[in-house]
Amino acid sequence: MLEVMAGKAKSGELALIEQIRKRAGVGSGAVQLGIGDDCAILRPRAGEDLVVTTDFTLEGRHFRRDWHTPRSVGHRTLARGLSDLAAMGAKPVAAFLSLAITRNLVQKRGWIDAFLDGFLHLGEQFGTVLAGGDTSESPSEHVLADVVLMGSVPRGKALRRSGARAGDFLYCTGSLGGATVELAELEKSPRRFRAAKASGDHPHLFPVPRVKAGQALLKRGLATACMDISDGLSTDLAHLCESSGVSAEVEADRLPLHPLARGLDAEAGLAAALHGGEDYELLFTAQVGTKMPQVIGGVPVTRIGTITAKRKGTPQVTLVGADGVRTELAPQGWEHLR
Amino acid sequence: MLEVMAGKAKSGELALIEQIRKRAGVGSGAVQLGIGDDCAILRPRAGEDLVVTTDFTLEGRHFRRDWHTPRSVGHRTLARGLSDLAAMGAKPVAAFLSLAITRNLVQKRGWIDAFLDGFLHLGEQFGTVLAGGDTSESPSEHVLADVVLMGSVPRGKALRRSGARAGDFLYCTGSLGGATVELAELEKSPRRFRAAKASGDHPHLFPVPRVKAGQALLKRGLATACMDISDGLSTDLAHLCESSGVSAEVEADRLPLHPLARGLDAEAGLAAALHGGEDYELLFTAQVGTKMPQVIGGVPVTRIGTITAKRKGTPQVTLVGADGVRTELAPQGWEHLR
Repeated sequence: MLEVMAGKAKSGELALIEQIRKRAGVGSGAVQLGIGDDCAILRPRAGEDLVVTTDFTLEGRHFRRDWHTPRSVGHRTLARGLSDLAAMGAKPVAAFLSLAITRNLVQKRGWIDAFLDGFLHLGEQFGTVLAGGDTSESPSEHVLADVVLMGSVPRGKALRRSGARAGDFLYCTGSLGGATVELAELEKSPRRFRAAKASGDHPHLFPVPRVKAGQALLKRGLATACMDISDGLSTDLAHLCESSGVSAEVEADRLPLHPLARGLDAEAGLAAALHGGEDYELLFTAQVGTKMPQVIGGVPVTRIGTITAKRKGTPQVTLVGADGVRTELAPQGWEHLR
Repeated sequence: MLEVMAGKAKSGELALIEQIRKRAGVGSGAVQLGIGDDCAILRPRAGEDLVVTTDFTLEGRHFRRDWHTPRSVGHRTLARGLSDLAAMGAKPVAAFLSLAITRNLVQKRGWIDAFLDGFLHLGEQFGTVLAGGDTSESPSEHVLADVVLMGSVPRGKALRRSGARAGDFLYCTGSLGGATVELAELEKSPRRFRAAKASGDHPHLFPVPRVKAGQALLKRGLATACMDISDGLSTDLAHLCESSGVSAEVEADRLPLHPLARGLDAEAGLAAALHGGEDYELLFTAQVGTKMPQVIGGVPVTRIGTITAKRKGTPQVTLVGADGVRTELAPQGWEHLR
């Protein structure tokens, strides 16, 4: 323990770093210096702000090795962070990956290679250079990853959660509920998904972060507020309302259900769309009168409701059913840490 | 598991975020927007490069809760990253903290508060704003932290590992071997250290990152190459030689042993200074003829050897004993991941 804790050199770890470095891009564009020194060096362009987000991807919480292929884990690790950049309308610049692997995976370099395949393939799609990180042996039987994503936006122009105003229309990109339904199917039969590919429509295993849609919203000045739907619509909309000091109404029959959610009975499908997490779509608002295109950055846009003034005694978010009945839409999240 | 993995809202986690947010600084200086949106927003100054580093601090690998107080863990989590910034000569700008805590610590908010005390107290000393991060419940009984540090340097001026040339003198800051000896004492009697404070000289529990020394080296143009000593002198000097394409000689009787290492017999003291990790001093080189001050950024500087040309058949690093006997100084690291 003494030796381990003294953090001495570890040629096994050095080999892992070398494995990652060989696969990572060398410095290019804003990344002046990538993996190999004490720090990476970035050169932001004049007139740009940098946005930064970090996201854990922990085995046993965010994935299971008996359910998820390493390619899917790598993809999802990066997708979480890219989705946060998308929510700000940012252009991805660089990713940093901290990765702790279990002792037995050191022998099985194939797992790490496939993880990197998934991570780097998605990175290439969105011009994200792997510019650094850290490696360690995991203290448990869990693979642990933490990703840092950095992106750039024109100065002062980042999309925020706090700009929604009463009267604004509420929109989302793509479709909702697919990830939670696919996860339930994965749980029942992991084998069915062993050959799933990023090129297929796999909202849980290979979510597509809405980076292009976010950039288009920013560039065209369409949105008053924006965030990504990672914890489920009911929860994330509550966050948006909180940040903006407003309330909202969601119209159930406007919700764009993913085909997987449409395959369920109506109530379960609606629940998946309202509370299912990890859809990684964008939730945004725009002033009435804004000419909203039907497709942004290659993805459909749907109006799902309206922002209203905050009033004492009325719910923060109201769900208007297809039958016109109004009910409170409470955030229906789980208590991880209580 | 389904619910947990769907990543739904977690008011326990929200409470933790709130606990951290309340203690973190609000946006100031280069940090335009801190915790609370999808990303933090940074505004780098014109003419500056940004340097970025990430460092894991994992229970069972980098600390033990039965040895280290939460204050020490918080301090060490940040110190590791600050030391990387110091190695580049950077001015700290912002820190991002990803923190996964165990279920039983949720009840014991005191541990997290003391962790944050240690983290934020060190951050204040060096003008580092906690600007964001992520939280999760740990999938195991281990507290897991990953820290991202961002700093700024004048454009193109970051200190690098790769600039050492044959003939340069080799220096280090402060003293060596203290951290590994204190760790050994901590292992024997953790109780003795329960009241240890950052204000005392505790090279393992409360290392002082050499941020000011690094900035001074950069500003005064003194160093040709620089890195921090985190894995032990023998290992880190090998990295510096590798990056610069040179060899080096270390003179044993020049090494500035920490008082704790001086308390050991001569051989053990020398071994602690050569191979003990986590001293977090700076290792740097300067051209012959450079007027090197005896103290930089408040910390003593000692010449410990010379950079030499790389030659086939001669060791990368040679140790010259007090008796003049020359031996190869191999990196003596442990194999975490083999």
